[in-house]
Amino acid sequence: MRSVIDILDLSVGELDELMNTALDIAAHHDKYAERCRGKKLATLFFEPSTRTRLSFEAAMYELGGNVIGFAEANSSSASKGESVADTVRVVSCYADIIAMRHFKEGAPLVASFNASIPVINAGDGGHYHPTQTLADLLTIYREKGRLSGLTVGIVGDLKYGRTVHSLIAALSRYENNKIVLVSPNELQLPQYVIDDVNAKAKRGENCGLSFVQTNDMLEHMSEFDILYMTRVQRERFADKAEYERLKDSYILNAAKLKTAKKDMCILHPLPRVNEISVDVDDDSRACYFKQAENGKLMRMALILKLLELGDGKKPTVSGETGEFRCDNPNCITSTEQELKHYFKRDNGICRCIYCDKQVKPIK
Amino acid sequence: MRSVIDILDLSVGELDELMNTALDIAAHHDKYAERCRGKKLATLFFEPSTRTRLSFEAAMYELGGNVIGFAEANSSSASKGESVADTVRVVSCYADIIAMRHFKEGAPLVASFNASIPVINAGDGGHYHPTQTLADLLTIYREKGRLSGLTVGIVGDLKYGRTVHSLIAALSRYENNKIVLVSPNELQLPQYVIDDVNAKAKRGENCGLSFVQTNDMLEHMSEFDILYMTRVQRERFADKAEYERLKDSYILNAAKLKTAKKDMCILHPLPRVNEISVDVDDDSRACYFKQAENGKLMRMALILKLLELGDGKKPTVSGETGEFRCDNPNCITSTEQELKHYFKRDNGICRCIYCDKQVKPIK
Amino acid sequence: MRSVIDILDLSVGELDELMNTALDIAAHHDKYAERCRGKKLATLFFEPSTRTRLSFEAAMYELGGNVIGFAEANSSSASKGESVADTVRVVSCYADIIAMRHFKEGAPLVASFNASIPVINAGDGGHYHPTQTLADLLTIYREKGRLSGLTVGIVGDLKYGRTVHSLIAALSRYENNKIVLVSPNELQLPQYVIDDVNAKAKRGENCGLSFVQTNDMLEHMSEFDILYMTRVQRERFADKAEYERLKDSYILNAAKLKTAKKDMCILHPLPRVNEISVDVDDDSRACYFKQAENGKLMRMALILKLLELGDGKKPTVSGETGEFRCDNPNCITSTEQELKHYFKRDNGICRCIYCDKQVKPIK
Repeated sequence: MRSVIDILDLSVGELDELMNTALDIAAHHDKYAERCRGKKLATLFFEPSTRTRLSFEAAMYELGGNVIGFAEANSSSASKGESVADTVRVVSCYADIIAMRHFKEGAPLVASFNASIPVINAGDGGHYHPTQTLADLLTIYREKGRLSGLTVGIVGDLKYGRTVHSLIAALSRYENNKIVLVSPNELQLPQYVIDDVNAKAKRGENCGLSFVQTNDMLEHMSEFDILYMTRVQRERFADKAEYERLKDSYILNAAKLKTAKKDMCILHPLPRVNEISVDVDDDSRACYFKQAENGKLMRMALILKLLELGDGKKPTVSGETGEFRCDNPNCITSTEQELKHYFKRDNGICRCIYCDKQVKPIK
Repeated sequence: MRSVIDILDLSVGELDELMNTALDIAAHHDKYAERCRGKKLATLFFEPSTRTRLSFEAAMYELGGNVIGFAEANSSSASKGESVADTVRVVSCYADIIAMRHFKEGAPLVASFNASIPVINAGDGGHYHPTQTLADLLTIYREKGRLSGLTVGIVGDLKYGRTVHSLIAALSRYENNKIVLVSPNELQLPQYVIDDVNAKAKRGENCGLSFVQTNDMLEHMSEFDILYMTRVQRERFADKAEYERLKDSYILNAAKLKTAKKDMCILHPLPRVNEISVDVDDDSRACYFKQAENGKLMRMALILKLLELGDGKKPTVSGETGEFRCDNPNCITSTEQELKHYFKRDNGICRCIYCDKQVKPIK
Repeated sequence: MRSVIDILDLSVGELDELMNTALDIAAHHDKYAERCRGKKLATLFFEPSTRTRLSFEAAMYELGGNVIGFAEANSSSASKGESVADTVRVVSCYADIIAMRHFKEGAPLVASFNASIPVINAGDGGHYHPTQTLADLLTIYREKGRLSGLTVGIVGDLKYGRTVHSLIAALSRYENNKIVLVSPNELQLPQYVIDDVNAKAKRGENCGLSFVQTNDMLEHMSEFDILYMTRVQRERFADKAEYERLKDSYILNAAKLKTAKKDMCILHPLPRVNEISVDVDDDSRACYFKQAENGKLMRMALILKLLELGDGKKPTVSGETGEFRCDNPNCITSTEQELKHYFKRDNGICRCIYCDKQVKPIK
């Protein structure tokens, strides 16, 4: 069976296919109402995420299937110390496909190596969240009619925002996209994300991106085709005075939209706290609630695709083991005692296969 | 779309229609087994209430629909600070109808202004709980054959008991009902509830009620057609000695039923702790478990009705804003930062539209 | 209606019937896909147990039914002090069959006396867990082709392990079984379990068992047809040094399997922590994940059987009351104030009907 852990697990062709399926579902909803009759989705949410969980559940019900699962870890066997591997082996007896959210990076990848059914990563710590990116892409495609030739402003916490990193990786696979990175200095996009895009472009693995960095949302407002807002969290700032000084400049409101294109599209992965003022909600450019609808459609398309691929070979660990260990405290290797540490070589850097952080030599 | 926040949102004619539908469901259950096929109920329980939640879920399943949702707030995005408005806008993409329980008064009303699907109030703090009243009314109707000409004893905590206030408002719309209010002095029915019934009677908006107040359950026992028991909670008493002295007199047991009519009907909104002794359970007058069954039937009827009304206009805020603010700490306005404070004028008093408490002038 | 609280509530003939149904479900799954259409299972889990809950839910969905319920007590009315009796009376209005897990011994028995629908015990404290035993029996039957003439090693915590006690009681009903009890001295099988088997054998109520006790797993490894592993918990040891000394000898790994039969069958009720090393997982003798699949099949068979029996007489309390009281703090009698203490006479010992512990005379 096939699993989706990272947005890059899907080829550009597969993304096209998923978007076409999603659009067909939107147009001919009834045609799909019985497609998963008798199938079960297991929503294994080791960390609560109501929106994502309800979206997956709605998707499965709209395909005629059923849902089992849990909404947080203390309702699960994890509180008794069971490994992710054992949990998904057992759940493979109960369900046909898994959507897993976990607070540890790499947990869904571990799951995919052990489940005998497909695993969809529904968010693993600060690492990946591919179905959010699917929602983003479909929304851009529906609103702009294309995924190329776009100027995309991304605003807020670009350092820790996993949805931002995935969206950048996804957009790099389409031609002539320009990314305007708007953030306080403390929360700039990590250089390795840019390096990774550039390295792949050099190897012909993507189409490349042009990047512009700024602190000022208004500077490029008139150029944006897409404005992707994310939250700037007080907790991220060492200097709280700095936070107080900056926070308002990263809040979008009706006044700041004056110079924006009339057909610009405003996105936000939600939930928002106050980074988009409610006076923007009735603006026709506000697309963040449409994103939620599109997320459900893409999850329906993905569930369908993975179930229809049917029995396949379980993915197997690809990596080396022995010389290095991961010491990232947020990685699944930090809690799973019997999990072997594997690494992969990436431009001369050895990275953990689970969390993608650099591994350390074993002394 | 149409929402039900308060029992008075339903006209007497609509109540009749709902009761007739409920009776028809009871008689011809199979006829309804597919009526909501393909529809989804979202149970958004920001505060746990197993009984109410299971009743809604059973109702939806018996109509052939499905259910998504959460059972308590820490499983929800609310713990990340998301507004009720945003939550229901997103849930409107996932479900066809919402049942919302919230610890803040007025939250379901806020939801109804923002959802694009119908919202049923499943209890908002100490404020309203209309589907409990629907259960009460159907039970009285099935047991007594009428909702008028009844002597109704209501016992216990009449000060804080929201189900009591709603039942009184509902019974005032039928002719010749007499309410005997039985409570300790500290927990008497608030005068404004009585004033409200009387003012509406004067304006011809209801049929009026005659009220009798007493501390003694036994005094009028022989007159009751309906005996509605509620809990007297220790926490409500400033004077604990007073509580100890009184508590037994508000516990119904077999001995106290000696003078009661043979066809009296004993109700309780459940869960009970000890305010009805288990030696009453086998008495044919005990109807509190039938209430649970009737609650499910009325919820089925209400879900059906609201879904069948189909797309309609979203309810809009009706009220004034500017001069006054609500300072009720239990009101939804106390936690939702961006929610405008609206008030309505009611007999010269200005009340918050969300929680119905008197608002304060802005200095 | 008929309930199943203890594995011994099912006759040997009924067990055969359930196993045959389970095998038929495994062979002809589609035939059963609509058998419970329109029926609802209530999963009342007052204590979390993800595996057991998901197994019941999967079972019900695969029969075409639906599921309502809760996953832990703080989501339930129990936190408001409602009795088990009231909870199940109300749930009887919402569902067709109950699966109850409770932290108090005897709670599901109390439920069975009060529900008007069948109750399945999904684990009551350290007392019974009959559907785990059903999973064990079907796995043994499928792997070995018989339930008699077997040498069964049971390893680990035999003192507190409820699944062990139930499995022993179940195996005593088949001929020529030999049980090898492997445990540290501190966690030996209680003598009363052995006495009970022997007393029943003497009265012709079972087939008897031969017992061997040892501290050493390896001693009889070559004889085992079945090796049933359970967890040895650190918390159970008064002497922690003793625990450290012993713990490794109760961990099964590939090396320890060298002398075992090639067709031995390794079982574990799961979740495991580390008592079976992951290097055993790929051994063809490892059957613990098959147990999970078999558990689902037996739960399907049991739900079907109990629902098809249809309306029957509610079980009634059989026992005496008055002279004795249960003082077991883990018994449901310790928390339910209005629950009468009943006892039964068993070989001259008076035992609580709820928890089976010896009762104390009332002074």
